[in-house]
Amino acid sequence: MKVTVNVSNRHIHLTKEHIETLFGSGYALTEQKKLMQPHQFAANETLTVAGPRNEVSGVRIVGPERTQTQIEMTVSDVRYLGIKAPLRLSGDLEGSGAAVLKGPKGTVELKEGAIVAKRHIHISQKDADVMNLKDGDAVSVKMGGERALTYENTVIRIDEKNAGPECHLDIEEANAALIKNGDKADIIK
Amino acid sequence: MKVTVNVSNRHIHLTKEHIETLFGSGYALTEQKKLMQPHQFAANETLTVAGPRNEVSGVRIVGPERTQTQIEMTVSDVRYLGIKAPLRLSGDLEGSGAAVLKGPKGTVELKEGAIVAKRHIHISQKDADVMNLKDGDAVSVKMGGERALTYENTVIRIDEKNAGPECHLDIEEANAALIKNGDKADIIK
Repeated sequence: MKVTVNVSNRHIHLTKEHIETLFGSGYALTEQKKLMQPHQFAANETLTVAGPRNEVSGVRIVGPERTQTQIEMTVSDVRYLGIKAPLRLSGDLEGSGAAVLKGPKGTVELKEGAIVAKRHIHISQKDADVMNLKDGDAVSVKMGGERALTYENTVIRIDEKNAGPECHLDIEEANAALIKNGDKADIIK
Repeated sequence: MKVTVNVSNRHIHLTKEHIETLFGSGYALTEQKKLMQPHQFAANETLTVAGPRNEVSGVRIVGPERTQTQIEMTVSDVRYLGIKAPLRLSGDLEGSGAAVLKGPKGTVELKEGAIVAKRHIHISQKDADVMNLKDGDAVSVKMGGERALTYENTVIRIDEKNAGPECHLDIEEANAALIKNGDKADIIK
């Protein structure tokens, strides 16, 4: 089965409370552009992420607001910042990395929330049934081209809102295969 | 067959002439630390690499001097700089990318020399014979772990000076698999 690749660079999801701490009371994120995932948008707003070793400025916020603040960074970013961020699926934040967010109106010291995103595939129940896959299964994703490679351990997430099938990779994973956003790959069971 | 992984971050190789243009007449590179490859060293000296869009400072020089100046950058770097650098084996520079090198004493405008390194394996003739491989063949390299993956199109280079077997990856390729320098992988024919 073919899957569309969706490539993420470093980004941040924020709670309403943290948006207000960082940008001021009553502040709401503004949309720069819609993303491939339904209802998600890249915001005009960016933040600085700081760790014990360095900081990275201009990190894009992805809206809308969420129930937990989450920072998704690459392995290179994590090393540069000097933080400890585990490989996790989005939303699985217990015991994840600490980092500081700096905005124009305030600062948030997160005890956890920083992760390196674990690659995964959003897929409808119907498409999953075709391949006899269930939520949480791991499959491989095969990319062609000059830097052809096969990603193993790619987690299946049954998702009717973002029925894809759509494979989410971070920018380093994508560059390792010279993949661009929207490219097609093959799911291999 | 097992292979040791050698991970490269962005770096520069320089000719004697360019060392003198960038650092001054009669200048010689100084050794910071030896690298895995025989006779190669990370120099104390760094340069700024500039493209039409941005520049990256602190790019490490790898010595000793070579007969051609070569800039090896990641896909992310190339995009950030705004240059065009093709995927190439080291030394295959005809028609490769243009970029500007800025040193403390001068500047070099390179018409070609910037590449994204093509992954490859240094191996002795004897080990290549065991797997019935010849120079230029492509094999796959399989990594285990949480971000397990298999790199296809990995070029065999028969090399008695660096007999390995040693697989050279750039930092984005390595991070895509959570590989560290010195980790072991499997060569698959």
